[in-house]
Amino acid sequence: MIGRLCIIGLGLMGGSLAAALKAQGKVGSVVATGRREASLAKGLELGVIDEYTLDLAEAVRGADIVVIATPTLVAESVLSDLAPLWNDTMVVTDVASVKGNIQRAAEHIFGDVPSNLVLGHPIAGSEQSGVEAARAGLFEDHRVILTPLATTRPEAVTAVEQMWQASGADVVCMPVAEHDAVLASTSHLPHVLAYTLVDALAKDGRAAEIFRFAAGGFRDFTRIASSDPKMWHDIVLANADAVLAGIDLFSSHLSELRRAIENGDGEAIYKVFDQAKAARDEHFLGQYLNGQSAGKSD
Amino acid sequence: MIGRLCIIGLGLMGGSLAAALKAQGKVGSVVATGRREASLAKGLELGVIDEYTLDLAEAVRGADIVVIATPTLVAESVLSDLAPLWNDTMVVTDVASVKGNIQRAAEHIFGDVPSNLVLGHPIAGSEQSGVEAARAGLFEDHRVILTPLATTRPEAVTAVEQMWQASGADVVCMPVAEHDAVLASTSHLPHVLAYTLVDALAKDGRAAEIFRFAAGGFRDFTRIASSDPKMWHDIVLANADAVLAGIDLFSSHLSELRRAIENGDGEAIYKVFDQAKAARDEHFLGQYLNGQSAGKSD
Repeated sequence: MIGRLCIIGLGLMGGSLAAALKAQGKVGSVVATGRREASLAKGLELGVIDEYTLDLAEAVRGADIVVIATPTLVAESVLSDLAPLWNDTMVVTDVASVKGNIQRAAEHIFGDVPSNLVLGHPIAGSEQSGVEAARAGLFEDHRVILTPLATTRPEAVTAVEQMWQASGADVVCMPVAEHDAVLASTSHLPHVLAYTLVDALAKDGRAAEIFRFAAGGFRDFTRIASSDPKMWHDIVLANADAVLAGIDLFSSHLSELRRAIENGDGEAIYKVFDQAKAARDEHFLGQYLNGQSAGKSD
Repeated sequence: MIGRLCIIGLGLMGGSLAAALKAQGKVGSVVATGRREASLAKGLELGVIDEYTLDLAEAVRGADIVVIATPTLVAESVLSDLAPLWNDTMVVTDVASVKGNIQRAAEHIFGDVPSNLVLGHPIAGSEQSGVEAARAGLFEDHRVILTPLATTRPEAVTAVEQMWQASGADVVCMPVAEHDAVLASTSHLPHVLAYTLVDALAKDGRAAEIFRFAAGGFRDFTRIASSDPKMWHDIVLANADAVLAGIDLFSSHLSELRRAIENGDGEAIYKVFDQAKAARDEHFLGQYLNGQSAGKSD
């Protein structure tokens, strides 16, 4: 049970977390703060939060858990704003899609990452955004990755873990670098590839014809290219090294396949396609069949 | 009304076409032939066809329309087998995903493309295959592209057009080269990219972690990598020039974006993402909202 929860940046993620904890009776009161009063007022109207303030100091006062639920790059500056208000009785966590940049920001601001700061990332989302889209079930059966350091207080990790479990999520811990590498592969790189393909085709002279005859495969393949460009701009910049490594790995495989196609090397082409299908069907469909993951977006 | 329809290669496409025409009462009788008797017997059992034979000459005898519904590269050799049986009273068409290679095969075999050969491509499909997966509604509200030449007999085009319309499809005509370029962009290239990504990640040391934490975005992005590798091997080889051009266009855009990420050029990154989202939302979601296309695979 969380006595007082503070959400900084009330959008889809923060709103859904608050709604889930309220629905489960796992929180006493929820206060939200942020830069856009309209979102805060909307959250109050929807009953997602109990009160709001535009004053950060007032918002964090007496909070047991503070959740930084702003966009990725904004989270860095929120940490700076929080520094003079920091105290040992609260636990602070975040929901950003990249963890390395937040860790570096914390090191820069605090010298060392505070022992009551537990970085986290709920792998859930939606093409919609804003507190209007918040729903109590958003995290149910989704994974939340926490990236505590050796110096993080175990009670702080437990508090954040229990909060996410109360929202219905499965919580796992892993190192920051591993999180960022894994997410670069499964999420950030696919977004980069989808955006690149759609942008390339849109600039092609045949764009109208191309989109006219696109079918279901193209629709699904490019769905993530309809994601919020500002959010993904932030993520790609925040996780640049891992994303660049992913692009290079992908490009070298694509060059190899290109050579095989140019040489009419059917055996090599078949091998790539067959291995890919086998890997996806085994690892991925299996995972879904076991109900280990779900969700519309990451 | 088609008196006698002959399907060569009874799988998902041929079976669904036969089922649709029978359901609409637009065909007198359907005979199928092919190399796998089990598929033919299954089609008979399911009531999709009226009779079958393993003898190609017997199958085409008296047929008003002959549909070559084999995999892409097999269709070339079926044309060779048909050459000695060719007559002017039948109309021949196909369903392969690439049209240039079939046209070249026809030119090679017949000297000129016969005036009663109308190449076509229904943009519909499923991750399932085989006549067991056939269903009368597969082509409803899907597009069928026909690629008649200036020398194709108008009555032959009309006959094929009416057959597809009877199955519920929208029929459009375009030149062979345009078909192959457009499909390379909307379908063949996305398959190549999805297969490449999954294969690259599967070979990565972190493969198990990667697949474990993949969420909905990755699932949709890579869904087409679960497609039949043999079928896509055929398509990529048959449409190699257009696919290579697509890979090159994509790679040059990806290199540009890579440079922007490396240089921390947020403006350039945002521009690509924003343009891509705008293009997809405008052309593509608009298209879907208007009900102009649908389907699970292409």
